[in-house]
Amino acid sequence: MTSRRSTLAAAALLAALTGAWSSPRHLPGEEIAYPTGYRLWTHVKSEIIGPEHPAFPRFGGIHHVYANQPAMTGYRAGRFPQGSVIVFDVLQAEQRDGRTFGTRRRVVDVMVKDSIRFGATGGWGFEEFRGDSRTERSAPELMRGCAGCHQRAPHDMVFSDFPD
Amino acid sequence: MTSRRSTLAAAALLAALTGAWSSPRHLPGEEIAYPTGYRLWTHVKSEIIGPEHPAFPRFGGIHHVYANQPAMTGYRAGRFPQGSVIVFDVLQAEQRDGRTFGTRRRVVDVMVKDSIRFGATGGWGFEEFRGDSRTERSAPELMRGCAGCHQRAPHDMVFSDFPD
Repeated sequence: MTSRRSTLAAAALLAALTGAWSSPRHLPGEEIAYPTGYRLWTHVKSEIIGPEHPAFPRFGGIHHVYANQPAMTGYRAGRFPQGSVIVFDVLQAEQRDGRTFGTRRRVVDVMVKDSIRFGATGGWGFEEFRGDSRTERSAPELMRGCAGCHQRAPHDMVFSDFPD
Repeated sequence: MTSRRSTLAAAALLAALTGAWSSPRHLPGEEIAYPTGYRLWTHVKSEIIGPEHPAFPRFGGIHHVYANQPAMTGYRAGRFPQGSVIVFDVLQAEQRDGRTFGTRRRVVDVMVKDSIRFGATGGWGFEEFRGDSRTERSAPELMRGCAGCHQRAPHDMVFSDFPD
């Protein structure tokens, strides 16, 4: 939280100096809106991340990937147009009587294509919402690794394929 | 296959007597079309069926449930309108490095709401397509248990909820 506070303080100072932001909520890493209605977007794929996977502490459970219409064009073309949004919806996984299924929502991760706003991170901006909250975001320092890892993805920083 | 042949023969006889069907392909259990485009319908839920589950031999793997627009109305209302179609898309599951993910398609199961055509089975008709085929259907005797099992479902013979 100290690191988050100092980031916010620095941003507020910068905003005051440049007039570019009206509030510290508009940090570059925090400008991404909650992806309202994403559960009605196209389902790209689902996977389970188990305890043996290095990403388990953060993303363990069952996740579903959803894409909006521009992102669906991107899956077909291999390059994602402006306005593409992809959601990585992570639920806790429970195993019972031979079934493995999702329970409570852990996080909703979002990547948004905007080559101007997010030019420094390959044209994609990343955000994470906690649980079912549409306003509670993960700390900016948690989001710093997103772009670096996604740069290793095969298609324009996107790991998934459609159809999977 | 013998049972399938005799069913077809009986249907052909009935069709000849009543003029109701033009070919044995139009058996009551076989009238359901492949659900073209279902991968772009709404994703309801996904689950994994493991070896400990009694349904493993038939449905083991990762499955995704998709619903067309009328069925989405049904999920909200608790009663499904005419024309509702729900797809149960079963992929082989593979486990590697802590990830569990779908590979080849096993079956595409379909349930269609039509209270007139399928009045004898609670208003729902059931069909199963094999693998990625849009024409190769499972034998009618395999489909006989569908309605009986679905009668135990909580909402109008549908097991899943939305949102899950």
